[in-house]
Amino acid sequence: MTHTSNFADRLVERILRTKSRVCVGCDPDPALFPPELAEVEDAVAATAAFGFELMSAVGDVAAAVKFQAAFYERFGPAGLEVLARHLAAAREAGLIAILDCKRGDVGHTMRAYCEAYITPGAPLETDAVTLAPYIGADGLAPFSVCAGEHGKGYFVVVKSSNPSTADVQDVLMEDGRPVHHRVAEMTAAVGRHLVGQSGYSAAGAVVGATYPDAITRLRELMPQQFFLMPGVGAQGGDVSLLGRAFDTRGLGGLVASSRGVAFAWREREGVDWREAAREAAHELRLAVNAILPLW
Amino acid sequence: MTHTSNFADRLVERILRTKSRVCVGCDPDPALFPPELAEVEDAVAATAAFGFELMSAVGDVAAAVKFQAAFYERFGPAGLEVLARHLAAAREAGLIAILDCKRGDVGHTMRAYCEAYITPGAPLETDAVTLAPYIGADGLAPFSVCAGEHGKGYFVVVKSSNPSTADVQDVLMEDGRPVHHRVAEMTAAVGRHLVGQSGYSAAGAVVGATYPDAITRLRELMPQQFFLMPGVGAQGGDVSLLGRAFDTRGLGGLVASSRGVAFAWREREGVDWREAAREAAHELRLAVNAILPLW
Repeated sequence: MTHTSNFADRLVERILRTKSRVCVGCDPDPALFPPELAEVEDAVAATAAFGFELMSAVGDVAAAVKFQAAFYERFGPAGLEVLARHLAAAREAGLIAILDCKRGDVGHTMRAYCEAYITPGAPLETDAVTLAPYIGADGLAPFSVCAGEHGKGYFVVVKSSNPSTADVQDVLMEDGRPVHHRVAEMTAAVGRHLVGQSGYSAAGAVVGATYPDAITRLRELMPQQFFLMPGVGAQGGDVSLLGRAFDTRGLGGLVASSRGVAFAWREREGVDWREAAREAAHELRLAVNAILPLW
Repeated sequence: MTHTSNFADRLVERILRTKSRVCVGCDPDPALFPPELAEVEDAVAATAAFGFELMSAVGDVAAAVKFQAAFYERFGPAGLEVLARHLAAAREAGLIAILDCKRGDVGHTMRAYCEAYITPGAPLETDAVTLAPYIGADGLAPFSVCAGEHGKGYFVVVKSSNPSTADVQDVLMEDGRPVHHRVAEMTAAVGRHLVGQSGYSAAGAVVGATYPDAITRLRELMPQQFFLMPGVGAQGGDVSLLGRAFDTRGLGGLVASSRGVAFAWREREGVDWREAAREAAHELRLAVNAILPLW
């Protein structure tokens, strides 16, 4: 086995090098493509071009890129070919590649997902994935072991950014706390063995930027988890309210924006879509840095 | 749009025609392959052969086949090629094809999953999928609409078959009930518009056969949901305790067995693995029919 450093340590290193805590979301939704890509007849080719051009535009202002698996799976095998190339390109460019696939299953199935995504040389090798928590710790535990062995990471969906979190995540438990607090505790416990030199664990958490009030308590429950925070931009999350996700060094969080970056051209008339994406990612980087400097 | 009948109605029709409420799980885990497939050097080819031969062995004693996505994704695009062929073969043979992929995400992402799996002509078209509930109803709702349009179905993971359901699913809510009761209510509500002539909804539920005590109450909470019940066989679920999942016609449930069927050869010395699988599926069919006749 080759030596591999802890995922959280690699993420911290990347953040410090780029002075960016921005994670650009790559959701190649053809309905939102700029005109020049919407005109491409071959939708798979347009998807491929979208991702490569987006990464090339934002590559040095972003810490990470998050790829939404659904927009590749919709093309079946041909879509996964593109996903594999996007993931490889991101990692070759030094970006931290996160596959947003929200997998969650029983133990022996999770080991197969490890082979798909976080084993060196895997067909869809990525630095980290997102995972769903409902199955419980015996799904997360074998994935954790594999992540630790290979210097990979994951982010458990603790509190998502969408409106309907009231349905399950915010249901109150007997002790009066919401269910997502229990999920936070489970995430912290399962990831305890993955803490790196940075003090952070390779097991992180998805915490919606649309619920800033939830962050303070989640930070207490998960002191060692990196927070991947989607929901700024199109979904309405306000960067200036995310301060409590970060520690005094400015570490501990990634602010994720998908449509807000890739589709910024829609609000910048006459600007090339790649230039607009770059500007939007750069502005998001500055907005995060303005609230919380990196030391 | 072509006319398509309700998924639950199609499932009921298949059950009545085959006199079987057995769902055979196709988990092509190479670690468990019979010697003749374990010897095949090309692991993708072995996976393909495993699925085709399993279906051909159990095709007329099973109502449905459930394919575990992880064991295909581990091969990347080449694995999805095989999955597409397995799904097509199952559907051509008249089997109900269920893709066990436990997807769960926000609305606009769920619409992309619809395009991948439940839209006619989709690259990985299946009759139904499994879905994860943690995101809440605004992930399930758009998927439901698409399923209804195309005569497709889904099964929400309400109570899974693994040991760690205590971590999230069984946590007690303020009213003293477990969280999975809330998920059951959400599943019933979201699937209300998908009820067919059989009285069942195209929106079903995954209910682990390993927790028979939970079934009575879940049936009350989800009177219109078909229960997909994994966990008999290798995981220890006892068929004789599943009676309350079914209505007086013997409808409302599918008993799912993966390793118990595909790997039955391990306990039947000298018997060809396909013949052993067929025998095991047939015995499971008889065991279900013995408890609860089909009228």
